[in-house]
Amino acid sequence: MNMVEIIRKKRDGEALLGEEIAWFVRALCAGSIPDYQVSALLMAIFLRGMNGEETAALTLEMAKSGGMADLSAVPGLKVDKHSTGGVGDLTTLVALPLAAACGAKVAKMSGRALGHTGGTLDKLWSIPGFRTNLSEGEFTAQLNQIGCALIGQSEALAPADKILYALRDVSATVESLPLIVSSILSKKIAAGADAIVLDVKTGSGALMKGFEDSMALAEEMVKIGKLAGRRMLALVTDMDEPLGRSIGNALEIREAVAILKGEEEGRAAELCLRIAAAMLALALDLAEDEALKRVRAALEEGRGLLKLREWVAAQGGNPAAIDDPSLLPGARVRREVKSLQSGFITAIDARALGLAAGALGAARETKEAAVDYGVGLELLRQRGDAVRAGEALAAVYAQSEEAALRCEGDILAAIQIGEDEPRPRPLIFARFERKAPPKHSILPSFQKINPFPGFSC
Amino acid sequence: MNMVEIIRKKRDGEALLGEEIAWFVRALCAGSIPDYQVSALLMAIFLRGMNGEETAALTLEMAKSGGMADLSAVPGLKVDKHSTGGVGDLTTLVALPLAAACGAKVAKMSGRALGHTGGTLDKLWSIPGFRTNLSEGEFTAQLNQIGCALIGQSEALAPADKILYALRDVSATVESLPLIVSSILSKKIAAGADAIVLDVKTGSGALMKGFEDSMALAEEMVKIGKLAGRRMLALVTDMDEPLGRSIGNALEIREAVAILKGEEEGRAAELCLRIAAAMLALALDLAEDEALKRVRAALEEGRGLLKLREWVAAQGGNPAAIDDPSLLPGARVRREVKSLQSGFITAIDARALGLAAGALGAARETKEAAVDYGVGLELLRQRGDAVRAGEALAAVYAQSEEAALRCEGDILAAIQIGEDEPRPRPLIFARFERKAPPKHSILPSFQKINPFPGFSC
Repeated sequence: MNMVEIIRKKRDGEALLGEEIAWFVRALCAGSIPDYQVSALLMAIFLRGMNGEETAALTLEMAKSGGMADLSAVPGLKVDKHSTGGVGDLTTLVALPLAAACGAKVAKMSGRALGHTGGTLDKLWSIPGFRTNLSEGEFTAQLNQIGCALIGQSEALAPADKILYALRDVSATVESLPLIVSSILSKKIAAGADAIVLDVKTGSGALMKGFEDSMALAEEMVKIGKLAGRRMLALVTDMDEPLGRSIGNALEIREAVAILKGEEEGRAAELCLRIAAAMLALALDLAEDEALKRVRAALEEGRGLLKLREWVAAQGGNPAAIDDPSLLPGARVRREVKSLQSGFITAIDARALGLAAGALGAARETKEAAVDYGVGLELLRQRGDAVRAGEALAAVYAQSEEAALRCEGDILAAIQIGEDEPRPRPLIFARFERKAPPKHSILPSFQKINPFPGFSC
Repeated sequence: MNMVEIIRKKRDGEALLGEEIAWFVRALCAGSIPDYQVSALLMAIFLRGMNGEETAALTLEMAKSGGMADLSAVPGLKVDKHSTGGVGDLTTLVALPLAAACGAKVAKMSGRALGHTGGTLDKLWSIPGFRTNLSEGEFTAQLNQIGCALIGQSEALAPADKILYALRDVSATVESLPLIVSSILSKKIAAGADAIVLDVKTGSGALMKGFEDSMALAEEMVKIGKLAGRRMLALVTDMDEPLGRSIGNALEIREAVAILKGEEEGRAAELCLRIAAAMLALALDLAEDEALKRVRAALEEGRGLLKLREWVAAQGGNPAAIDDPSLLPGARVRREVKSLQSGFITAIDARALGLAAGALGAARETKEAAVDYGVGLELLRQRGDAVRAGEALAAVYAQSEEAALRCEGDILAAIQIGEDEPRPRPLIFARFERKAPPKHSILPSFQKINPFPGFSC
């Protein structure tokens, strides 16, 4: 194989063969392709695209580039869920215990906060003692015992993705559909997922803002996942405003608990139920209506909350913190931000609020920086609410009055108030599904490789 | 300036600003842009193209990236000539003395053999004593004195081109119009050319084989050269068969001398006259008919041959070798290759013969390898000739019988013989011209930088 010839083919819009993609990924991981050739190929892929077979082959080769989780000791289909990243997105905290409470085997891999979007790992780490660096034995044992387990994304998983991502970031080739799809799915597949529910966010707070782009991503992910032999379901959901009331790690844990207690009925609760139902439907091969009925019942009967406690305890967290929020990290200062005008809330800028919470310390600016789990924002009013000047719009949780004051302007700027009541915005825009695994996967099914890839976070 | 943003702009098909291109070229030469970003940009340029303003800006910035020749001590317009590379292409050896004999100031920069195509430097070096590493003083003095001077392409000229070319070669981004144009013109402009005649070869023996591609290159070169404030004229000429009878360094010197003596009237002689006329027309601002008349007169009166002797002597060569070919390097063996069939010669594969001559030692396989100036091939029959089986088609000049025998098969394979007389093929397909320099060059005219860039070969 010849790298210049592979670049030339893609440059000229030809489809790469499976063996060319396999050779490329192996040589990439062996360090035998210079960066300047990799980036030239990435740009050619960006501009010429890849067909489904190429993207699926790339995804599977990237998945195989490191250790692959062996979850064969856990009977049944293992389901994972992936969000493209949002603000106030506590879905995993609620949907995972709900789906597990209904009998799904949820083998979840999560990431950390990125830019203005929060990370599930950071949220869980705000529960005292919660650990996400489970060994293979711990992970499979927990999955068998309580039906759910969550690990941090490991550097050992899909190392090809790490190499490619580092180059994409500096060569303006991040926003490429085949490269995004293969990056996400390769890690999920390497982590052992048989079924994957995708929550593709769209709107100002999403990483992929445009509606058409989000739709295309959801459709492509489902298509490629299916070609790779996985059960797939994708929802395109609103991220024009923050999903939940809370933005901040411990604050979101509290809100998740409130949802599981049945105390919240807003958009966040609704999406959690829909995501949990999708996970259950894929894992148990149920109709989604039936799955939704079972998930609602689990919520109403408190089985989701029970499962959360069980889950937290299984991963070393203090389950008492679920019932007593004072055991979670807190903030010294709570300061309300009051409206300067009267009118209707017409828009709440998710990205701006994500950045404001990050500036308070709720997210890290550099990879190594510490996160303050206690700080964040709470929206006291929602889009569409009528407010009067002087009424509280949001509360800031900070460690000092100065820090709280500093972000007040940003919060006011992020909440638009107008004269007319805004039209309601849908929560779920679209749904893409490919339930049945294909008869012939385009590549032979994976060899399960031992040892377990040494998950760490 | 931000390199990722520049890549992104070009990736998205936007035009880069002059200051962005200037920043890029400066940072490239300073070594502050990693190769993987350069190659990503090159691929984006390859696939998205560049408009005329961008290409002209790139050309001028590349020209300015090293030393720029200062030929202000030579009055009048300095004309250079560039061929995209051919087999048996002795044009410079004839056109340069002819144009100079008619009063043009020919400041010529030449390169070495590349792949299957010969290099003017190699041909001249076959004349005992001929040197091409003139100093600035020698170059301008000779130009003033005899009207022509030729130097080898210097590494100090347009160093940005050297960096870019090395990366293009390994990232499948060689065949890009704006990148080819800026590479060629930047070096010519840095070497001080005010007027440039381009001989764009087309056909199987050309570096750019396709007719449409050759036409596009000629048109673009003229357009960009004009935008850069230069007088331009381009001819698209046939390179489907070798231009002259001879392929090999000393052999081509002999043929050039024969043309200047008026002993040859084939396609090679015709093209030499047309190129010389184009150079004269640009340099003296003449109508091309008038220029052609003067060039023909110079040939007929033997002034071209006189100028060749003068030129060879001025650059340290032995002028006696012009009149006595035995003073040129020779070959121990001359072996004729005889036709196996009777019929018409329907095609002569220039590329194959260029490679065959190279295999004899007429070109270098690696940058450092020595060239045998005496070896090569001579075509004894031309395309369209009727031949009988057993008649000699070509003569091989080699240093051993074995070497001569080894290439016999390649030569026979390169000369196609068929039943029907082939249709004549035009020598000159098209002509592109932009004589008047533009009123406003898109960039301020160059600062002439001293010292002279230390030409070397």
